[in-house]
Amino acid sequence: MDQQPPSNFARVRRKPQRAAYDRTTIHAILDAGMVCHVGHIIDGRPVVIPTFHWRHGDRVYWHGSAASRMLEANAAGGEVCLTVTLLDAWVLARTSFNHSANYRSVLCFGRPSVVDHPDEKLAAMKGFVERLFPGRWDRLRPPTVQEIKATLILSLPLTEASAKLRTGPPIDDEADRAWPVWAGVLPLHLVADKPVADAYVVPGQEPPATPL
Amino acid sequence: MDQQPPSNFARVRRKPQRAAYDRTTIHAILDAGMVCHVGHIIDGRPVVIPTFHWRHGDRVYWHGSAASRMLEANAAGGEVCLTVTLLDAWVLARTSFNHSANYRSVLCFGRPSVVDHPDEKLAAMKGFVERLFPGRWDRLRPPTVQEIKATLILSLPLTEASAKLRTGPPIDDEADRAWPVWAGVLPLHLVADKPVADAYVVPGQEPPATPL
Repeated sequence: MDQQPPSNFARVRRKPQRAAYDRTTIHAILDAGMVCHVGHIIDGRPVVIPTFHWRHGDRVYWHGSAASRMLEANAAGGEVCLTVTLLDAWVLARTSFNHSANYRSVLCFGRPSVVDHPDEKLAAMKGFVERLFPGRWDRLRPPTVQEIKATLILSLPLTEASAKLRTGPPIDDEADRAWPVWAGVLPLHLVADKPVADAYVVPGQEPPATPL
Repeated sequence: MDQQPPSNFARVRRKPQRAAYDRTTIHAILDAGMVCHVGHIIDGRPVVIPTFHWRHGDRVYWHGSAASRMLEANAAGGEVCLTVTLLDAWVLARTSFNHSANYRSVLCFGRPSVVDHPDEKLAAMKGFVERLFPGRWDRLRPPTVQEIKATLILSLPLTEASAKLRTGPPIDDEADRAWPVWAGVLPLHLVADKPVADAYVVPGQEPPATPL
């Protein structure tokens, strides 16, 4: 495993013992997260937009809109920071100071490319649907040329990326361990509720398995 | 309800019919979210860091570290964009193009202040713990002067903020409604699993209710 930061900029400075730079860790966190936050600089100001991402090999892809600020920012050749965060647990300690969270996060830096070749774009759109709902792509009404044109997909190589993780129980000072309050971990996870069909589903069509 | 954007910059441009600018909506989303993503400009590059936030009145507060890049960026008087996103459901349509998500998000722009008065900082730390675990603050070992000093809390007035929301079923073209595939909404929500006590909990101490 490569545990060296790919650049000084991508190096985790705060709590570096929680950092990871190996592909396996970075890929796993990107694959487990369903929402990403993409930071751009627009008119000299930071703008952080939530959107959806997926990974193929050593690139991360995300979904924009041909009418969005993201395209404007990207058309200007701007850099982005794409961040994916998974909150795994609240970590309750005996002091407010030692309260924490167990989490997994990845920051990816770079200048994104627009996926503009229709075939490549179609493959990326398929990758997004199939990642969440395997087998669904082939059952959908195929996209039209106009729909492909109206979809903005951006991508970034994972050349400048870092992960940060915390796991485990709270870390209280030894002197505080006898303090009379509960301390430990409250694990969290996302669940899917019962699917709600829309008004037009034709008989015999079942909802897909949930991607969780 | 004030449905005017507070500034041209905070105005939602993409799908403006999903925008909201009233305090009630913005407060409710900030209060429901547990993780925020804060975008800074560092060395001319966007950096998006996940952290924890809470709200008091018409300000949002978040937690940093006195050793972090966030402080450096803030010390330079830099602007931030603090974004909170809740993913409520996957929205499955009959075409890949009409797939979407139900979500609630808020973007807050501005130049943060460091909460530096010890009393104000203590009140903010209490606000954070009490928001998630009501009644817990008074049961904790009180913070030391050194712990208060080592905690970085930033805050931003909600003067330039916007919300964006999507709810409801997929919106397919009428011509696609008979396409033979399931379409509808897969609701998602975060749940807490069984609490895991650490090795030192003294007898009789029970875990707090989970903040979900």
